[in-house]
This record gives sequence, structure tokens and C-alpha cells, in this order.
Amino acid sequence: MLRTHTCGELRITDIDKTVKLSGWVQRSRDLGGMTFIDLRDRYGITQLVFNMETHATLCKKARKLGREYVIQVEGLVAERSNKNTKIPTGEIEITAENIVVLNESKLPPFTIEDNTDGGEELRMKYRYLDLRRNPLRKALELRHKMAITTRNYLDKQGFFDIETPYLIKSTPEGARDFIVPSRMNTNQFYALPQSPQTFKQLLMVAGYDRYYQIVKCFRDEDLRADRQPEFTQIDCEMAFVEQEDILDMFEGLTLHLFKEIKGMEIDKFPRMEYSDAMKYYGSDKPDIRFGMRFVELNDLTQDKGFAIFDQAELVVGIKADGLSDYSRKQLDQLTDLVRKPQIGAKGLVYIKYNSDGSFKSSVDKFYNTEDLQKITDRFEAKPGDLILILSGETEKVRKQLNELRLEMGNRLGYRNPNVFAPLWVVDFPLLEWDEDNGRFHAMHHPFTSPKPEDIALLETDPGKVRANAYDLVINGVEIGGGSIRIHNRELQKLMFKHLGFTEEEAQAQFGFLMDAFEYGAPPHGGVAFGFDRITSLFGGSDSIRDYIAFPKNNSGRDVMIDTPSLVSQAQLDELMLNIVKPTK
Amino acid sequence: MLRTHTCGELRITDIDKTVKLSGWVQRSRDLGGMTFIDLRDRYGITQLVFNMETHATLCKKARKLGREYVIQVEGLVAERSNKNTKIPTGEIEITAENIVVLNESKLPPFTIEDNTDGGEELRMKYRYLDLRRNPLRKALELRHKMAITTRNYLDKQGFFDIETPYLIKSTPEGARDFIVPSRMNTNQFYALPQSPQTFKQLLMVAGYDRYYQIVKCFRDEDLRADRQPEFTQIDCEMAFVEQEDILDMFEGLTLHLFKEIKGMEIDKFPRMEYSDAMKYYGSDKPDIRFGMRFVELNDLTQDKGFAIFDQAELVVGIKADGLSDYSRKQLDQLTDLVRKPQIGAKGLVYIKYNSDGSFKSSVDKFYNTEDLQKITDRFEAKPGDLILILSGETEKVRKQLNELRLEMGNRLGYRNPNVFAPLWVVDFPLLEWDEDNGRFHAMHHPFTSPKPEDIALLETDPGKVRANAYDLVINGVEIGGGSIRIHNRELQKLMFKHLGFTEEEAQAQFGFLMDAFEYGAPPHGGVAFGFDRITSLFGGSDSIRDYIAFPKNNSGRDVMIDTPSLVSQAQLDELMLNIVKPTK
Repeated sequence: MLRTHTCGELRITDIDKTVKLSGWVQRSRDLGGMTFIDLRDRYGITQLVFNMETHATLCKKARKLGREYVIQVEGLVAERSNKNTKIPTGEIEITAENIVVLNESKLPPFTIEDNTDGGEELRMKYRYLDLRRNPLRKALELRHKMAITTRNYLDKQGFFDIETPYLIKSTPEGARDFIVPSRMNTNQFYALPQSPQTFKQLLMVAGYDRYYQIVKCFRDEDLRADRQPEFTQIDCEMAFVEQEDILDMFEGLTLHLFKEIKGMEIDKFPRMEYSDAMKYYGSDKPDIRFGMRFVELNDLTQDKGFAIFDQAELVVGIKADGLSDYSRKQLDQLTDLVRKPQIGAKGLVYIKYNSDGSFKSSVDKFYNTEDLQKITDRFEAKPGDLILILSGETEKVRKQLNELRLEMGNRLGYRNPNVFAPLWVVDFPLLEWDEDNGRFHAMHHPFTSPKPEDIALLETDPGKVRANAYDLVINGVEIGGGSIRIHNRELQKLMFKHLGFTEEEAQAQFGFLMDAFEYGAPPHGGVAFGFDRITSLFGGSDSIRDYIAFPKNNSGRDVMIDTPSLVSQAQLDELMLNIVKPTK
Repeated sequence: MLRTHTCGELRITDIDKTVKLSGWVQRSRDLGGMTFIDLRDRYGITQLVFNMETHATLCKKARKLGREYVIQVEGLVAERSNKNTKIPTGEIEITAENIVVLNESKLPPFTIEDNTDGGEELRMKYRYLDLRRNPLRKALELRHKMAITTRNYLDKQGFFDIETPYLIKSTPEGARDFIVPSRMNTNQFYALPQSPQTFKQLLMVAGYDRYYQIVKCFRDEDLRADRQPEFTQIDCEMAFVEQEDILDMFEGLTLHLFKEIKGMEIDKFPRMEYSDAMKYYGSDKPDIRFGMRFVELNDLTQDKGFAIFDQAELVVGIKADGLSDYSRKQLDQLTDLVRKPQIGAKGLVYIKYNSDGSFKSSVDKFYNTEDLQKITDRFEAKPGDLILILSGETEKVRKQLNELRLEMGNRLGYRNPNVFAPLWVVDFPLLEWDEDNGRFHAMHHPFTSPKPEDIALLETDPGKVRANAYDLVINGVEIGGGSIRIHNRELQKLMFKHLGFTEEEAQAQFGFLMDAFEYGAPPHGGVAFGFDRITSLFGGSDSIRDYIAFPKNNSGRDVMIDTPSLVSQAQLDELMLNIVKPTK
């Protein structure tokens, strides 16, 4: 080894030891007769001292070392006169006896500091330098710890880590597949998996009743911020279980992660029906770190002459504690916010319940004090509170009010990233109406089982059928979801029919699974957690990119290795492919 | 949970407990008043008893259950009168009180037994049924244990599990890439990684000095038996190390696996130079479970009038202990073996050192007793031994004799799959002459560092340059290999030049890596183990397919899901691709 210790290891108890360290030059300072160098590696920083009086040649050599040079130093551990209490090695320094330059470095294009001067683009191009910075090092270390802790927990629970294939079959259902031309099977293609869904179900049929995998998945979708074409899932499946068993198991995993990784004890997760989540939070992933639940007001607001409310399908509001002194300008800002095209509300009604007990509202004209008192009473408002009300078509207005609620939560400091409020959202609808294609599609995926008591509704009112499907939501972020699956050929056929598959299409694409259901398929269900997302949540960050060693940018490019890129005609010829040049 | 216990769990101490089990009907037997059913799950088999006298309806129901039906049974644990000592649950049975059929099963296309009646093709199509059989269940359980044991060992040694991307850049060097068309980047392609080689090196540049990953890799090669287009590696890299440190670390991992998984204590691994491996075993992966080292004989055989030996570049033989009584027929068989086209020897010379001390040889005509004595002495042969000799061009004859040695090892019972003889083969050549292309290519890969003392030879005698490269070989199977890498831009450029890259090609394909070497790249090296292979070795099998949940066949097809397959023209249009139909 080119070192006896790491740069984060030596303490006051190591004094007088002769040691060898290797690492990068973080910074150096010349103070007349002495030169100090901070030597950095993944484990920490150790101060090196070079003495011009006693080791002139060595000291001169040290003065020539630039930032990010890789060196090996040999020397004696000594007590520092000027101790640095901020770092674990701050009580000692190395009196250097010898240095070897292991590699030189050009001046890095940005500073390797916690707060760097490098822009996003530049840091992506030199990702290997950006990864040297503390925040990214900590992010990847956290990811490693999350992975091994998850694995050991699931191993102890009897789960087998079973690898499923990456070269699978393209199916038009769901998101767009990446496809992979096969050379040995002319004109045919594999697809990269969007998830190992059908394979994990086949493993249940095969009797492996507890399966997990931390696995890459692929979707060729247009990338919004924080979507990656390849992403990682903690993918799990269990047989001989009911929904409750799965929620228990993976609540257990999540609690274990909180305890092991963050030293936090979290209460049992509350559960909320999808319909309540929509009704009270306007979202299937409510942030329950704070209340501010929706209060519906139609009965109190109608027939008072305010046409907008009278004509609205839903009049619904939230209460912002203690904000009755919001200025005209602040209220206008909120109105502008909800009117933004991506939110789309027409306007915002407020009621200030002033500290002196009086009311001030943007709809004073239509509602007298008694009316306003009734409304604010329903919110259990106190003097000093502010009521914000939106109205319109139910689904839309709920989504709008969700945005406003989250904004008010931010303003009131209710969304502390160091507070964690997990929640199971359950009883999702089985089907979702797809306006564009004029048909239902599966809200979760086509293998999700309807609740037995709702199966009859499939024929009469498909949109009302509830599924045995659930999501884990933490702080308003969807961490993952799952369902109890169909394990019966006839029911699976029925589902495909309702999703608009012809019998031939269903058989061609998923025949292998329906066949498997005829050979003793056990009841089963599972869950998949977004590993990038839960890791970034644990890290207290919104950006999953910081938690991926080599992410792609919003165009799906890796700008460091400059890919995707052209391939040779010879490669295409072998694959029997031609590229079509864009016409313009 | 649809069970209180698994089918492998109940013991004599559980008697009188009311339990619920779920599983598959392995077999059932009607014995007049009683019906017995063996219920199976991943954990074992439990006997169920149905009594016609006391529970006629239930018993009749039980008699209708077919093989592989999935049932739930409730009943009382009772002591068996007729105990089965072969299974851990053999002392008890369940007196059934109730059964629920969870799913029916068609008659499986082959028996779900240790020795099944199903052919390879059929079992691949119904892989989910084949996976129910004990040998495959044990194989996947072993694989899971190998993985988690490896992970925990490396975690304790400070390795970070860091995921590298699957959508990377195609490089013509090495094996053929699978490519993935990009929709968002018109006419451009990603490639699936043949290994995370360059990324793990970039992680070393980034300061993550101990990296590992258990990761899928992809090669679009024509498949020989037991090659898969996607395969799994234990991929590792370390910085600030020398070759010795890496050998120590991964010898430690291997020893740990032997101990934890197989309960075996193995001695420190011997090391052998590549040149010795070739000279004494004719292979870079010698099976050292047995000796039978090559003995070179040119000096003893020449100028005796036997033209074949006189003209041969190498005359070399092995000694087969105690086989001097091999018959003419047996010797002819061996001659036929080495003459097979895939081995390619012209003939085989034998010397029988008979038990009575006399000699009998196929070349008696040329060599007298004294000559033969000298030859057999060199082998340290005893009366009763058989000497087998080949001759010809050095490289070819060594390969031929390697095949013969392995065959004789088999015949003599020296190749016991329960004996493990690991070996490090070191000092591989850096370059290998490629006849077809008339140039050198990298024996390991282009990032392998030459031994410093051999760098000068690059210009004068490139074939002689030795690399800091090493393979782990166990029982003649190459488990993995690695090398100390180049970490210097100039040396890497020189390597690419010797591999026939123009400067532009090198920059276009590997510029990112060479750039990274200019920003403080530390000395580093690593190793990759074939995970499929080491697992099958530990399982005592030659077939890696049994250790992969969903393998592909020799045409790269998954016959269960029937892929690769056609994709729609719409998918191709989005990707700006046309397929070229075969002309005939």
C-alpha cells in the first residue's frame, strides 16, 4: 500500500508514529520558514508541515506542489500548536521527512471546495473532479450505506437477491422502451426493462416467495428536471401475502433505514385512502409534515350572489396560521402564483381574520360578517389567521390548491428537510381515463389486482374500481409504490380487455405470464422504491443527480464521455440497420 | 400472511400447535381411509394427513388436488408414526382441518423433481416451473448468499458500492458492443457496457479509493456453450495500491467466501508466472488440483533418428501414474483424442514403464532402453507409470498437451469438484499478436500498465513486454482477472499507439480518460470476478446457466418470453431507423 494510514485517521494518540500518507493537495500556505499543506483523501484532511530550516530541499519541493497534485508523504505525527477543532485530525500534523509526487495535476477548471465556483455544465463535463467535493462524496457514501443496509435487512427477512435479465421484450404498454437491436436474430430487438415486473412475478410463480433486487431500470421519456433515462429501484415481491403484510414489511425496512442511517426513531406510518388524499390535500402524495387540510365550503358560499362560487363545482380553502397581516402586495403575489399557466387558477379569494376579531375579505361585497364567521369557524380559525379560497372544477381546483398549500407551507417554515413524515396512501383507483387516447389505462400497471368487492364495477363503472395498490410518500415525495397482483389468468385477461388489448395482443405480449398463471401461481404482491429518490430524501436534497455518480443531463447525454454518439456503418451493417437522416 | 409457518419449519417441538401452511402439492397418496399430501415451498416439504373417517368432505376435497395446485391448509401438528429421517420436517405431519385452494394448476409439462423428465428446451420455455426444482432453487440460493457475503466483506474493507451507467459509449476496441439507439439525440447511439472499466478508473481519479459493484455486463459475441450475452461481474478497483495489495485483498475475499459459504479453510494461494503456466501446464489457467507437470525432452530425444522429434520445436510429455498397463485400444483412444481437429496434434508417443522395470514404447525403434530410462528418469517415473509425449510447434503442442493432461486428470480421478485449488497467475504479457489483423492487441485491455522495467521493450520487442496483470484461477477455471492500470496520459497515449490507434481515434474514444489522468490521477488497479462462474464453481457445476434465473439460449434468445422480437414501425420511426431485410 502506498500509505500506512488515511488522511482522516490520525489522532493525538498517534503522536511520534512514523506514517506514510497519500492524497491530494487541497491547499498550501507558505509562512516564511514553514510550508503547510492540507492533504486530502476520501477520509479527511491531514496537515503536513515542511520546515525550511531543517529540510530546505524538501520544503522547496513542497512549495512547487500545485492544487490537486497527488503525493505520498512520509513523516512523523506531531501535536499541533494551533489546533483545528473543526476536523477530527485537527490536533495533529505530519512533520514531513520525504515526499513523492505520484502524479501532477493541471489547474482544475473549478475549485474543489464545498461551495465551488464551477457551473453545472462544467462540473458535469469534469464529473470526476466534481465527485471529489465533499457534498458529492457524502452523497455517494450515503447511497452506499442505504444500499448495504437495505440488503442486510431484506436478507435477514429471508429475501433472495435474484438478478433478472436486462435484455428483455419490448411492450408498447406504459412508457417508451429503449430497444437494442439483436445481431444474431436478424431484424429483431431486445428492450431494456422499465422494471423487472413480469420477471419478479414469474419468480413468485417459481416459488421464490421473497425476492428483492436493487436494479437499474430504463425509460426513454422526455426528461423533466430530475428524471434520468436510467434509474435505480429497490424492487421487491412477496408471495402468500395480503396488502397489510407488504405494508408492514416495507414500513419495517423504512424505519430500519431511518434508525440505522439517520439515528431517527419514527412513529408508525399513518395510512390515507387515495380519495381522502385528493379531498384533503389535492394530491396523491400529500406532504403531511403540516396540516393545512382542505376545507370545502360550497354550502356556506352559495346563493350569496357571488356568481363565481355559485357556478363552481367546488369551493375549497386552506387556513394559513397567523398570516392575517399579509399585505395587499403579498396577496397579489399569491394570486399571481395560482394564476401561472402551470397552476391555472383564475383567481384567489382571501379572508383575513384580523387580530381584533374583524374580517377583511376580497369578497366582502357578497358575504357579511356572519357569513365570514361561519366560514372561518369551519376552518377552526383564530383571530390573526388568513383563509385562502379557490373554486372551480373539482379535480383542477384541488390540484391548484395543493400548489398553494405547499407554497404556504414553505412560507410558514413547515417543510423542514430534517423532519420526516412518512405516509401510506392506499386504495388507488385501478384505472385512469386517458383523454388523449379515449380509453382507460392502468393507473399502476396492468398486473395490479382490483379489490375483489369492486370487480363487478369493471363492467359498469370502471373508473370507480379501486385497486389493492399503495404508495409510500415521505414529505410529499413519492418514494415508491406497489400492489397486490393478479394471479389468475381469467382476471388478467379481463384486465387486458378493459385496457383495450385485443386477445391476440395480450397473448403476444404477455402470454408467457398468463400461461404461468395456469401452473399454480400463488397470491403475491410487491413494491418498488425509487432508490435515487429515497437516497436524496435521506440526504436532505431535492436533486437526485447529486446522488448518482455519473448522471445524464436533460437531453439524456453524458457530457463527460460525450454520448450518445455516432456509430460506424460497419456496426449498423452487422445489425441490418440503416439510419434515416432528418429531412431538414 | 397466508401462513403461520413455512413448509420447512415445523419440528417435533411444535406438536399440538395449530398452524397454517401454504404451498404446492408435490404429490399425494390415497391409502384407503387416509390421504397424504406432501406440501412444498421454497423452505421444504411437510406431510399433510386427511382422514376419511373423521373428515370425509375434506378428505374428498384433498383427493381432487392435482400436482402443483397451490393450497392453504390449517391443521394440527402431530407426531408421525412412520418418521422420515431424510427431511428436517420428517418427524411431524399436519392433521388437516381445512384447506383452501389458492390456485389450480394444469399438469406441468415435466416433473418437478430433482431428476426431471423434461428436456432442456422445454425447461427453458417453462423456466418458472424448472426453477421450482431443488437443484435450481439451491443454485439461486447459493448465488444470493455469495452476493451478500461478498458485499459485506467488501463493505467492511471500506469499499463503496457505486453504480456506474448502463447507457455508455460504443468503442470498437475489444468485443462487440450492444448498441442502443437514442431517440432524443437523432441518429446517435448509446452502448451497453462490456464492463465498467473506464468508469471505475474515473472513480479512482475522483478519490473513491475502494470501489466495488456486482454489475451486469454485455457482449454481443457469438455464444459458445456457457457464454451469455449478459453476465455478471464482481467489479472492484483500488487506489494507492500495488499489485501485491490487490492480490491480498481479493485472496482475502475468496478465502472468506470459501469459509462462509462452504465451511472450508483454504491455504494461501500459490502464484505462478504466466510463462511458467504455459511451460508446465500449457495453459494460462492450469488446474493445479493435480501435478502432472510438463517435462521437456528435446535434448534427450534428438539425433536418435526419429525425424518427427528432431524436427519439432518442442518435445514435451506428461506422466500418468500407474497406467503402464493401458491397452492398445486405450492408447489408440488417446491418440484419436489429441488428433481431433479442435486439438490438432498429429500423433502421440507413449512409453510404458512396465511394472517389471522393462519399457515398451511406440518409438522403440529409435530409442534404446538406456534412452528410455533417461527420459522416464526425468519424469521421476516409477515402474507402472505411463509417459505420453507430444511434439511440434511450441505454442500449439503446449495447448494440445494441456488437453491431454486434463483428460488424464479426469481419468485418474484427480479433478474432484469438491476439492478447490486456487492459484494466482501473474506477469501476463501486455500484448498479444493478432494474426488476423496483423497487429498487436491488448491481452487484458488497453488500460493495463506494462511493468516499468519492460517499458523500453515496447519499441524493440513489444511481444516480450510483461504487464502488471493477474488472473485468479480455481480448478482450471478462470474466475477473474485484473491489472494495475496506467494512470499517466503519456503512457496511455503510447499504449494506444502500439495498439494501432491514431491519435485522433484515441482522443475521440478515450479522451475523457486521458484528460482525467491530467488532473491528479492516483496509482490504481483492480480486478473483476465472473460472478456467474465463481458461483457455479462453488456449486460444483460446470453449467453457469443453472445459476442464472432467466438465462438466454445459444442464439441469445429468451425462449420463455420469446425475445428478441419484432418491434413496430412506429418505434423505429421515432428512432429514425430502418431495418434492412436479408437479401435471400
